[in-house]
Amino acid sequence: MRAARLHAVGDLRVADEPEPEAGPGMSLVRVTAVGICGSDLHWWDEGAIGDAKLTHPLVLGHEGAGVIADGPRRGERVAIDPAIPDETCRACRDGYRNLCYRIRFSGHGETDGMLREVMAWPSALLHPLPDRVSDADGAMLEPLGVAIHSADLGHLPFAGRAAVIGCAARLGADQVAGADAVLDDAGVDVAFEAAGNDEAIGLAMASVRPGGRVVLAGIPGDDSIRFGASLARRKGLTIAMVRRMNEVYPRAIGLAARGVVDLGPVVTSRFGLGEVREAFADGAKRTGLKVVVEPQR
Amino acid sequence: MRAARLHAVGDLRVADEPEPEAGPGMSLVRVTAVGICGSDLHWWDEGAIGDAKLTHPLVLGHEGAGVIADGPRRGERVAIDPAIPDETCRACRDGYRNLCYRIRFSGHGETDGMLREVMAWPSALLHPLPDRVSDADGAMLEPLGVAIHSADLGHLPFAGRAAVIGCAARLGADQVAGADAVLDDAGVDVAFEAAGNDEAIGLAMASVRPGGRVVLAGIPGDDSIRFGASLARRKGLTIAMVRRMNEVYPRAIGLAARGVVDLGPVVTSRFGLGEVREAFADGAKRTGLKVVVEPQR
Amino acid sequence: MRAARLHAVGDLRVADEPEPEAGPGMSLVRVTAVGICGSDLHWWDEGAIGDAKLTHPLVLGHEGAGVIADGPRRGERVAIDPAIPDETCRACRDGYRNLCYRIRFSGHGETDGMLREVMAWPSALLHPLPDRVSDADGAMLEPLGVAIHSADLGHLPFAGRAAVIGCAARLGADQVAGADAVLDDAGVDVAFEAAGNDEAIGLAMASVRPGGRVVLAGIPGDDSIRFGASLARRKGLTIAMVRRMNEVYPRAIGLAARGVVDLGPVVTSRFGLGEVREAFADGAKRTGLKVVVEPQR
Amino acid sequence: MRAARLHAVGDLRVADEPEPEAGPGMSLVRVTAVGICGSDLHWWDEGAIGDAKLTHPLVLGHEGAGVIADGPRRGERVAIDPAIPDETCRACRDGYRNLCYRIRFSGHGETDGMLREVMAWPSALLHPLPDRVSDADGAMLEPLGVAIHSADLGHLPFAGRAAVIGCAARLGADQVAGADAVLDDAGVDVAFEAAGNDEAIGLAMASVRPGGRVVLAGIPGDDSIRFGASLARRKGLTIAMVRRMNEVYPRAIGLAARGVVDLGPVVTSRFGLGEVREAFADGAKRTGLKVVVEPQR
Repeated sequence: MRAARLHAVGDLRVADEPEPEAGPGMSLVRVTAVGICGSDLHWWDEGAIGDAKLTHPLVLGHEGAGVIADGPRRGERVAIDPAIPDETCRACRDGYRNLCYRIRFSGHGETDGMLREVMAWPSALLHPLPDRVSDADGAMLEPLGVAIHSADLGHLPFAGRAAVIGCAARLGADQVAGADAVLDDAGVDVAFEAAGNDEAIGLAMASVRPGGRVVLAGIPGDDSIRFGASLARRKGLTIAMVRRMNEVYPRAIGLAARGVVDLGPVVTSRFGLGEVREAFADGAKRTGLKVVVEPQR
Repeated sequence: MRAARLHAVGDLRVADEPEPEAGPGMSLVRVTAVGICGSDLHWWDEGAIGDAKLTHPLVLGHEGAGVIADGPRRGERVAIDPAIPDETCRACRDGYRNLCYRIRFSGHGETDGMLREVMAWPSALLHPLPDRVSDADGAMLEPLGVAIHSADLGHLPFAGRAAVIGCAARLGADQVAGADAVLDDAGVDVAFEAAGNDEAIGLAMASVRPGGRVVLAGIPGDDSIRFGASLARRKGLTIAMVRRMNEVYPRAIGLAARGVVDLGPVVTSRFGLGEVREAFADGAKRTGLKVVVEPQR
Repeated sequence: MRAARLHAVGDLRVADEPEPEAGPGMSLVRVTAVGICGSDLHWWDEGAIGDAKLTHPLVLGHEGAGVIADGPRRGERVAIDPAIPDETCRACRDGYRNLCYRIRFSGHGETDGMLREVMAWPSALLHPLPDRVSDADGAMLEPLGVAIHSADLGHLPFAGRAAVIGCAARLGADQVAGADAVLDDAGVDVAFEAAGNDEAIGLAMASVRPGGRVVLAGIPGDDSIRFGASLARRKGLTIAMVRRMNEVYPRAIGLAARGVVDLGPVVTSRFGLGEVREAFADGAKRTGLKVVVEPQR
Repeated sequence: MRAARLHAVGDLRVADEPEPEAGPGMSLVRVTAVGICGSDLHWWDEGAIGDAKLTHPLVLGHEGAGVIADGPRRGERVAIDPAIPDETCRACRDGYRNLCYRIRFSGHGETDGMLREVMAWPSALLHPLPDRVSDADGAMLEPLGVAIHSADLGHLPFAGRAAVIGCAARLGADQVAGADAVLDDAGVDVAFEAAGNDEAIGLAMASVRPGGRVVLAGIPGDDSIRFGASLARRKGLTIAMVRRMNEVYPRAIGLAARGVVDLGPVVTSRFGLGEVREAFADGAKRTGLKVVVEPQR
């Protein structure tokens, strides 16, 4: 089995490795599509993300789809939920699996990710894909899921108004308004900030109505968030921090299957596993939207 | 009628003034007790608070009680809600009267406050006091109300755990835990920050469980709030900003009337209106808890 | 000015009446479109609705649009919010204007409604219509508003699933699933019941997932609601009762203006004020969707 | 090991049985105290509860405490959470473990309960008891937990007002008002109904304010709930159904440990396991509050 492993900054090597074994409750998955995320690019060109550092050769990749290769579900096309919560800590029991303190995350820390031909993964985290949803779409369900989780945190009223700051694309619905909403006097119900800097946070806070919510999805480079106190206080704002996503795969699949969200145009280039360095170089140019690697090609 | 009016920094003068007239929907109130708040002390020793500046001689005071002096409710002992929302703006219609953009607030900006013998005030904002609640207690309902509003924003679960950072007193109930809770590994459900500095905010965020809430009630001197992004994100925190209080007087009166909260010990010194300078000097020493001025004395 | 007034069961008379006068805070409105609601038909063929009875000749109609005929907003095309809350009772102050105990409602009880050429109405309840929204559309904003209020009560998660029981039309979005959802094992997040009978309520309860919500919008003929206790208990259901609508006009107008909801096809026949008896007869046949009366014709 | 097993209506036999074995993830518990619940009395004198029927000899009992008898936690005094959710169904993953469709419940259906000397139970469901909480108190944490879960469903505002209908005792806090609240015009924020009949439900609905909540905890004998539609609609009520309890043990233990709730007086008689028939007979008289059986005596 071939796997793409990051050995050091910029040192991404594809090599043959023994196939993983599926322990109890796990399945083998032939990976068919993996999106390259901004955080993968951070690993690649800095050997780190936030306060996590590369300490040993790591297989990256956490936006993926594949086909189950063993057991009773063999042949099933699935999206691969990249997060393995421990299911027993207080965060998990309180229903915050995304906040699990002992979470393992695909392509992060000690946990090898999806940029390989075959991976073993907990069967419960493999979500069946309807025919209408392609493999590449299946990989895109992960970023869509984060958007849905952000929307959850926004408590957007039905037919309410939202502003999205620092994100090129509108995801999800016409309920998500564009930058013009920011200029409106009355203010939107919710503002989503995705840029990860204080200017965007300030713009988000300026754009919401009194009593509104601001959802912070951006990850600031200096690991610090700063905003003016009086505006936030006078508006009585509520600020919600986004951490990956909670139980959203079924809803993400539903949106894709019903065609409410069209994921096709999001993928703007595709590469085989042997071309993974080209794929990362392409992603780093940030000229397109999403780069997808197809390990079975 | 005597009134204490602040003419400039430290220049507080008691003088005779014409009695105010009560327009439609208003009542005359003989003020019996007025608490001196930290914000009054800011006006007094800096001529300003936040971005508001003293532009003309102003009667201070927004924590008060009195007796209605005219009309059908004459003789009724009342707590005086200091905030007059316009009731028509979107914030008011959305149920956020405390966030009204055209709010008038007793002893702030253009609106004379309670440090005088008689004031005219909207009758709907005069809340009847039960016999068990003294005049000084009635004045203390305003800060109690802010605490209740903060608790509302905390979404404290029934029998849940809270931490209060930077506030000497525990208000309300045994549901409010002390500083020891901060040291607990599992984390509290809600942390209330009342100090108005980034250290306290950081401590509050460190003290809550994953998925918990942090309520920011403190007013920072530099009008800026800063905290570390990763901790807040990994805990998926929700942060709520406190702005005065919404509809809480009935509940504050209920707590005082049932004896759940004992407001008596909060008042540690009392002065007549003629001694208002001594009262402010005493408050500025910050050796006791609350200073109360009794204008009818 | 002509007005259509119901004198007794089935006795609807159009006659000339003096034009109403607009008191303070009110405007004169030339009514251009009025939808006939099921409740109007109840008044017409039973002289009663629920426990309210016809006690004097009454002008019906509460789904309407018009043009302001006096004052500074003269010439403005508006939707007419039919409910006048007192704004001072506890329900109003708590943000439940739709639950105001002293509410006056257009075409109900003592309050003449919209089936006339001119009416005087509180200016704050006249919502400006964008060009894209026709007069008949403007009348349809009232039933759309009730649907939005019901959706609010449903707490529908973003991209979640809903079932609508007993209502021909899907309103609002693809988030509202059809009857097939009822047959799904996993259950929907929210079921909306609009039929007003116990069978529909049972079906709604059967269709939701554990922990889901059931929104009861139907008005039962026998004024009684009954359901099986164990199913509701085992699913830990939350049941929400719909009473008209709260602050929803701005959102309803937004949906119509952006074309998210197409109200045009909802109106299937139109009559002049002189043909109001034909209009009611047509509505009573219940062969189309909505009958609209145009008083200026 | 002795166990009390119900063979048929009224036929409760104490006999020696083989000690159970603790499978993986389980512990052996020496049961020290078991409360007799109304539902146990139903099993005993009707051989059924709701739609569940006695199909084989069953050990009853689900309110219990004990001492761990094996493994690393040996000697630990614990409260025994009686419900074993499957942790994998959608209800569990959505955070509604109490609504798990494959739940096993101590002393119900196929699952033997606590009226025996030793039981094997999942270790994660054994909650350590602080010294201050006695064994009998530990057994009472189960009904206290149901009360806390009901309070959760009530969304009681901080310092808000509640009415409890059909329950002799006030549990939890002064926030729970008595029957006088029912007579108050303004209405309480939440009414808890615990009687399980339509009269109590009607009283609960009459007692709440517009926009308030009614929590139905009673289990009606005829498995049917009926109430008047107009009152519920005009108040825009939300109705929540109680099903056992969700994650509440830590909070229940906290209340008992801090002495906020005094469970001692709730237990009004105690029996050994050999006297279990006398214990049930005593419980059936319903003259005291709680009967506790102590199997180690």
